[in-house]
Amino acid sequence: MKEIVYTYSHLFNFAVVVFMKIGCSSKEAESAAKVLVSADLRGIDSHGVARLSGYIRLWDVHRVNSKPNIQIIHETPSTAVIDGDSGLGLVVAPFAMQVAIEKAKKVGTGWVSVQNSNHYGIAAAHAMMALEHDMVGISMTNASPLVVPTFSIQKMLGTNPICVAVPAGKQPPFVADLATTTAANGKLEILQRKNMNTPFGWVQDADGNASTDANILKKGGALLPLGGDREHGSHKGYALGAVVDIFSGLLSGANYAPWVPPFPAYVPLPEKQPGKGIGHFFGAMRVDAFRTVDDFKKDMDDWIEGFRNATPSPGNEKVLVPGDPEREMEAERLQHGIPLVPQVAEDLQKLAERFELTF
Amino acid sequence: MKEIVYTYSHLFNFAVVVFMKIGCSSKEAESAAKVLVSADLRGIDSHGVARLSGYIRLWDVHRVNSKPNIQIIHETPSTAVIDGDSGLGLVVAPFAMQVAIEKAKKVGTGWVSVQNSNHYGIAAAHAMMALEHDMVGISMTNASPLVVPTFSIQKMLGTNPICVAVPAGKQPPFVADLATTTAANGKLEILQRKNMNTPFGWVQDADGNASTDANILKKGGALLPLGGDREHGSHKGYALGAVVDIFSGLLSGANYAPWVPPFPAYVPLPEKQPGKGIGHFFGAMRVDAFRTVDDFKKDMDDWIEGFRNATPSPGNEKVLVPGDPEREMEAERLQHGIPLVPQVAEDLQKLAERFELTF
Repeated sequence: MKEIVYTYSHLFNFAVVVFMKIGCSSKEAESAAKVLVSADLRGIDSHGVARLSGYIRLWDVHRVNSKPNIQIIHETPSTAVIDGDSGLGLVVAPFAMQVAIEKAKKVGTGWVSVQNSNHYGIAAAHAMMALEHDMVGISMTNASPLVVPTFSIQKMLGTNPICVAVPAGKQPPFVADLATTTAANGKLEILQRKNMNTPFGWVQDADGNASTDANILKKGGALLPLGGDREHGSHKGYALGAVVDIFSGLLSGANYAPWVPPFPAYVPLPEKQPGKGIGHFFGAMRVDAFRTVDDFKKDMDDWIEGFRNATPSPGNEKVLVPGDPEREMEAERLQHGIPLVPQVAEDLQKLAERFELTF
Repeated sequence: MKEIVYTYSHLFNFAVVVFMKIGCSSKEAESAAKVLVSADLRGIDSHGVARLSGYIRLWDVHRVNSKPNIQIIHETPSTAVIDGDSGLGLVVAPFAMQVAIEKAKKVGTGWVSVQNSNHYGIAAAHAMMALEHDMVGISMTNASPLVVPTFSIQKMLGTNPICVAVPAGKQPPFVADLATTTAANGKLEILQRKNMNTPFGWVQDADGNASTDANILKKGGALLPLGGDREHGSHKGYALGAVVDIFSGLLSGANYAPWVPPFPAYVPLPEKQPGKGIGHFFGAMRVDAFRTVDDFKKDMDDWIEGFRNATPSPGNEKVLVPGDPEREMEAERLQHGIPLVPQVAEDLQKLAERFELTF
């Protein structure tokens, strides 16, 4: 399985052109491509160009609208609800995050819940938009049901990620981006390709038994909430995933719980659709709505240095700060390129042929 | 070990009088007692009257100010920073949550970070204040360092809980209240009393080895972040605890990371004190800042019913919604009383003697 390495700009430009081919404006295509390829840069390969053909298939079945009329349908000084008009989540989410940032400029914080959207890429891409404004950024989304609540064999929640991005001074920003499950689905896909098992605590089978089968989702199994089982706090991971669903789906009027539309275009929509599309939630908090930016950043630097210099446990080189691995990956891949597994490169090649492009 | 049962009003009234004996106004004593005994009602015995003498010992060593001048020191339309003036967290926190609620009434949401406070009881007591206003309530606090980050043997974070309370319609509210560790310290205390071991994944020893010793904290060991180890997502629990610390300690100018003051009065303060006291963070979001309250509550009822009716896994009777066990406990204890273990009853008896009261 030989990987082929592409430059960031090669993948970015290709994604821009593909999104324009389905009818996106050049501005929206660039916005979408930036979010998409940021996942590859940061090492979240499951959410990058590997998904490009999946987004296009959603457009094929008319579940993605490439010319959406994204609009605010309700607002207060610090909040908004946005109707994404079935647009690409990759386009709707940056729009919504920008609304949160504008609200924060005016009244200190901004909070935006989004209905009628689609898969939005990595949570971090949106939360990190706040950083250049000296704001804390928050981003979360619901997703189609792969996860069982504690004590359940019925899949009721998505992997429902949360990202919190916090600016620092001399230090790079703090960026925590986490699925509310023990392991995200992308981790299973990697093990599937390698024909390996999962550790216990990641998945259960269709009957609710502990399992280590990386292919268990295809056999009716489920991902487990962060914590794994009740004894190890899975009710907490379940509660966090539930909060993401409520903020994203119920505050906005999107679908929620097991009724969130699936990403694969060939999977039919659930019969019950209590809302519109999938839901996201964004927050922006101006640091200087609390303290001076200088005071805060001085403390953040001290905080980050304290953690990075904490005594590591045996066998570990150092203690990491959330965001460290992804930032190091980004620097590495900007310099040396982004490796794609052959399946993904072939998938992009097929897209190129379909749209009469060269990849 | 025979438990003795007391009525809610007996414990509440006793706590009110004790807080007045150290100089609290009757209003503040009642506010503090309400928060304190709500923990006993909800079954979080580690955070209820079992801690009353601990709060008094903090007053003995002048770390709690019973006549605080709690004030807003910085604000925007949607935010405030509050200086708790070393007051009881049990008093400062409801004050701060009320400020968040008032801000939400005006601009949709309110966000309050608090410095110079003390231990605030259970997170849920404050977040739930939002419910009667048809608001989502959020509450979190930092705490003294008992928890190691992933890959660390140095304790850098507290158990840093998060509570999110969401109103529903016919259904009772959703209330998720969780320490960002696999297990809270109170769970260890229960095992200590029973001379039992912890499961793997709760604690590690001073050298970073896996441990099942419920007394390991006294031997230099540490609690583990939710997830337990890296393979099971402990970096996510660590990141969540870190977010709580940043929102509570760094947005407010309180102490943070390993420098948060300890609860036991006999433990000296860390030499380095980068801020003031301990920090909390509160949020209130008006439901109707997003959708009509009726639409939202209808969906919340549907959501809750969906989860409660999900197919349980073998050996489990039903799937729970966050807040269910605590609410059932509260109903039970309001009717049949609150059982206290003999050590706690004796501790309260000693407090009664000290202040010439009857318990």
